[in-house]
Amino acid sequence: MKSDRPIGVFDSGLGGLTVVKQLQRILPNENLVYFGDTARIPYGTKSKWLIRRFAMEDALFLSEFGIKLLVVACNTASSSALPLLQSRLDIPVVGVVEPGAQAAVVATKNKRIGVIGTSATIASSSYTRSIKKRMPEADVLGQPCPLLVPLVEEGWLDDEVTVLTLKKYLKPLIEAKADTIILGCTHYPLLEPVIRRIVGPDVTLIDSGKETAKAVRNILNASNLLNSSDKQGEDRYFVSDSPEMFAKIGSLFLGRSLPEVVRVDFDRFLVENSSSPLLQNIEVIHVE
Amino acid sequence: MKSDRPIGVFDSGLGGLTVVKQLQRILPNENLVYFGDTARIPYGTKSKWLIRRFAMEDALFLSEFGIKLLVVACNTASSSALPLLQSRLDIPVVGVVEPGAQAAVVATKNKRIGVIGTSATIASSSYTRSIKKRMPEADVLGQPCPLLVPLVEEGWLDDEVTVLTLKKYLKPLIEAKADTIILGCTHYPLLEPVIRRIVGPDVTLIDSGKETAKAVRNILNASNLLNSSDKQGEDRYFVSDSPEMFAKIGSLFLGRSLPEVVRVDFDRFLVENSSSPLLQNIEVIHVE
Repeated sequence: MKSDRPIGVFDSGLGGLTVVKQLQRILPNENLVYFGDTARIPYGTKSKWLIRRFAMEDALFLSEFGIKLLVVACNTASSSALPLLQSRLDIPVVGVVEPGAQAAVVATKNKRIGVIGTSATIASSSYTRSIKKRMPEADVLGQPCPLLVPLVEEGWLDDEVTVLTLKKYLKPLIEAKADTIILGCTHYPLLEPVIRRIVGPDVTLIDSGKETAKAVRNILNASNLLNSSDKQGEDRYFVSDSPEMFAKIGSLFLGRSLPEVVRVDFDRFLVENSSSPLLQNIEVIHVE
Repeated sequence: MKSDRPIGVFDSGLGGLTVVKQLQRILPNENLVYFGDTARIPYGTKSKWLIRRFAMEDALFLSEFGIKLLVVACNTASSSALPLLQSRLDIPVVGVVEPGAQAAVVATKNKRIGVIGTSATIASSSYTRSIKKRMPEADVLGQPCPLLVPLVEEGWLDDEVTVLTLKKYLKPLIEAKADTIILGCTHYPLLEPVIRRIVGPDVTLIDSGKETAKAVRNILNASNLLNSSDKQGEDRYFVSDSPEMFAKIGSLFLGRSLPEVVRVDFDRFLVENSSSPLLQNIEVIHVE
């Protein structure tokens, strides 16, 4: 397999750009292709079978670029669809949950770990399972925070409404004396300064996106798939709704302006691929 | 045309149930079929061409039930897709914008009208156009309120976060001395008590859903299409994501528990109908 093949990254929308930012920081020579499913965002309030279907469609689209590794840069999709993607694709598939859980287990001293995320991520208990696998005696407290994504997308990053909302959501974690809190949604790193003020200096905040970038580097290294080129890697961006809206808010997440963003009609992967064997029996897995 | 044919109602999700509630109140003998596009909710943050496409697909699905009239019970879809639907369907299509605008024009004394809605509804200027057509000298102030739908769906109907958020959103309308405010999103009637406390007793609040139900009655009456049966009408509910989630929160909107809710795979209207002439050239209209 040629090492200059791109890394594929998908998310329900913009949030995965925080993962791209970390990937570009530690793997500057890798080529990247990103898909944001902005026509169907958000995933976090939707059902498990639907999230699985969307995730598989996103993966199928990125597969067309001959990617060497797929990053599921969305906590919701990682929580509900990772085993499905790993079982049906023939490349490594890396989610954001395992790296985040691993880092939390390393960081915690009192073995009390808080997780904040979308309703779907918390309902899936993916972080709890992943932490307990490594540290069975850990106390894991999950807190669904459905308002945080809309608050970030409204741009109210340090508004009194955001502070009040975060105080409500974080209260049970503070009361339970969690010494480590996982930011279990790619939007949340933008709220890190406010969260830090509320929880104080002694709580470790885990950015799953940052941990995921490290995991990707380790896997590529172990599989001898790191790009041997010493040129700056290229990054390409595709979305399923308006490219203009994506590019505008996207720069906030990426920390710099984006190159051209291209819209893909979702018909392309829905209509042509709906008979794909990869899309069959997703509901059967749901019933398990 | 037989008068016992159902009225079709669609919305991006749950909000349209507030319109159903009003329809059942004043037209208790009518049969209803409702579609909530919960797989792709929300519409209010998406682009105009995508909203048009979704709206046309929703209309195509409901057309299969032989509906005699279509209610677009979603302010976002009414704002962006009503002319498209009216030009391509051969039944009356009623949106929520015109009835709400009409009621506001009748209610205002100082000709200063505020409109609150989703980002897409306000960006479309649909209420402003509709009001100015009837009262060219009116001052219309639109205020996008993207956080209100997530707050309602979180169930924080009378929470301090909701009060603070509404105070921020309503401040420009109060300062502009609007004497009439249109609740330009079907979720907002659930926030009416809090909004009333903030704006005081002298501001008229217009519930577009309530006005739309009256408009439907007038059109059916004028077209001799009112159901002549004296039996209680039947209502059927379809959604594109989990029926359980819909039924649970839906009772909040409908004010009573829902009958069976059925999930429709959106493949059904996407894949089979994507060659439909009704779905062609939606983007061309976008470019106009």
